[in-house]
Amino acid sequence: MATVVVLGSGIMATALATPLAENGHKMKLVGTHLDREIIDSIKATGIHPTLELKVPEGTEAYQLEEAEEAFKDAEYVMSGVNSFGVEWAGEQFAKLIKPNTHVMSIAKGIRYDEDGNFLFLPDVLMSYVPEEIRKTCSVTAIVGPSIAGELAVKRHTSVIFGSRDLEIANMWRDMFATDYYHVWTSTEFEALEMCACTKNCYAFGAGFMNGLLDALGEADAKYVNFNYGAALFAQATIEMMQWCEVIKADPKVAIGIPGVGDCFVTSMGGRNVRAGRLVGAGMTFSEARAKMPGVTLEGATAIVVVGEALEKLTARGVCKPEDFPLLRHLYQVVGHDQPVNMPWDTFFEGKGYI
Amino acid sequence: MATVVVLGSGIMATALATPLAENGHKMKLVGTHLDREIIDSIKATGIHPTLELKVPEGTEAYQLEEAEEAFKDAEYVMSGVNSFGVEWAGEQFAKLIKPNTHVMSIAKGIRYDEDGNFLFLPDVLMSYVPEEIRKTCSVTAIVGPSIAGELAVKRHTSVIFGSRDLEIANMWRDMFATDYYHVWTSTEFEALEMCACTKNCYAFGAGFMNGLLDALGEADAKYVNFNYGAALFAQATIEMMQWCEVIKADPKVAIGIPGVGDCFVTSMGGRNVRAGRLVGAGMTFSEARAKMPGVTLEGATAIVVVGEALEKLTARGVCKPEDFPLLRHLYQVVGHDQPVNMPWDTFFEGKGYI
Repeated sequence: MATVVVLGSGIMATALATPLAENGHKMKLVGTHLDREIIDSIKATGIHPTLELKVPEGTEAYQLEEAEEAFKDAEYVMSGVNSFGVEWAGEQFAKLIKPNTHVMSIAKGIRYDEDGNFLFLPDVLMSYVPEEIRKTCSVTAIVGPSIAGELAVKRHTSVIFGSRDLEIANMWRDMFATDYYHVWTSTEFEALEMCACTKNCYAFGAGFMNGLLDALGEADAKYVNFNYGAALFAQATIEMMQWCEVIKADPKVAIGIPGVGDCFVTSMGGRNVRAGRLVGAGMTFSEARAKMPGVTLEGATAIVVVGEALEKLTARGVCKPEDFPLLRHLYQVVGHDQPVNMPWDTFFEGKGYI
Repeated sequence: MATVVVLGSGIMATALATPLAENGHKMKLVGTHLDREIIDSIKATGIHPTLELKVPEGTEAYQLEEAEEAFKDAEYVMSGVNSFGVEWAGEQFAKLIKPNTHVMSIAKGIRYDEDGNFLFLPDVLMSYVPEEIRKTCSVTAIVGPSIAGELAVKRHTSVIFGSRDLEIANMWRDMFATDYYHVWTSTEFEALEMCACTKNCYAFGAGFMNGLLDALGEADAKYVNFNYGAALFAQATIEMMQWCEVIKADPKVAIGIPGVGDCFVTSMGGRNVRAGRLVGAGMTFSEARAKMPGVTLEGATAIVVVGEALEKLTARGVCKPEDFPLLRHLYQVVGHDQPVNMPWDTFFEGKGYI
């Protein structure tokens, strides 16, 4: 029996306790400073208040000040924070993890350096760990279409565990895979991370479908706006493949669950799509953002990060000005409060996808 | 001003009158024997009873017995029947069209020959026209994500006009394209048709998402089944690319609007998805079929056609037994009344998409 110690007790990390327990393993959930009530609830009743579900038998909950106790002798460690918390989690890991630790990362996002080169969150996380410890550790990431609550109630869920070392990814797979949690493994680490981040950007645009109907006062009209969403989804797929090319990875990774599959699930709803809907209905992004106080919008944030990096990459000639027209428009909308005005004529053309 | 004479007055053909009229052109709609009430309604009130919308000013409606009058001097002709009516429409065209006619086809489906080689509907349609006339005519097809009613109310819609002659496709584009009807043109005729057909097959599977919840009595549960649908959608994308490879066409055509985009829109609902839902909930396909009398199920029919062709192609070694696991399962479900039992382990692997 293995024990996985998780920093962050959000819904995704907690949902992973379900397949883990199914295989006879155990999770220790350590709350961040934002998770105090979640941990209190699990300690008192076993119920994760956001998931509204009981955590599996044997799952232990710790407040942040109990982290050292939880992490004592930990071999398998997970960062369960979202993309905003990665640097903070790295700082904690620097103090908490021992040599020869296997680390799992679940945040979906990205960073960039001054040249616009992308930095991948699992690497950012590990960069905080002192080198002499880090070089004895491994890092793996989970990507793919996985709504946390669905996994927690054992709906069929298909994901990829990506690591630069396939044996390590396989080891994690053996710990988590069940007959409803389908896990593939891959060494396409960077491409997987690129898809995991950019699909969040494109899913923001899915909100425009209904937002544009709202703007017309036709939210309940017989004819909705799926043709619009379908064209955006198609352009998103093409651009996710191109993002893989930008980082010199195999564009085929964007096909299948890491890109197309995850973009599908993320486009079906959630906070990011709700914000996109407000913008589609005519608000500036700043106005929409103000309407959703305290709500984390990973997709919108990713649009700004990727859009800023894209400006640098274009200036350096790595990307052409005509590349990524959808991402560029999303960046104008989210990063510069411009109205939605889809540049249809710039889509699909000249890329061999017609 | 051009006049497009259409055989078949279903919703898709009729919706195309909207952008056509926008550009100052005119449509003559000739009803089939199944369209009698539609034509009566348009003649009396201008309203298409299924669309529940008025056809554009100037659109003329003809009963089938008035077809010769409508087709007199027609230069631009469209087959507006669905995939079940193509052979019938071909027989009519054999009598109705003159030399130098430009023909447009909108049905999405496919046929196969005794070796399992695919035959494309626009070619099947034209095969009925006497050769000395046919060789002076052109044929073009519309593919891409286009819900008819959305186009009819001028929602943004993005499609591809595919022809073996790009100039012909461009000519049709110039007739139909507006600021809401976005048209690209392509000579990837066979690949486009392959996507248009197979996306209907895969969209049937999208119904399983909710059907499986029905089976659990959890149709209103907090956690739905998008993870399941996302994984299927991803495998569908991979298989649509592989179908293009089978016919020695560019698999990239399946990315973008012809494959991914159209599969998205078709997965969002409609008769095909409703039938899939009944099957996902536990009925055999025959039982589900019987529950929907008189309803055309193009997707389910396409599954059987493609599934039968696939058996022949596999026997001949054109396809490997491990190729197309999702299509094969759909064929077992629809063609052989087997229960839904998704072969997850056969997905994604070994194709470079992980």
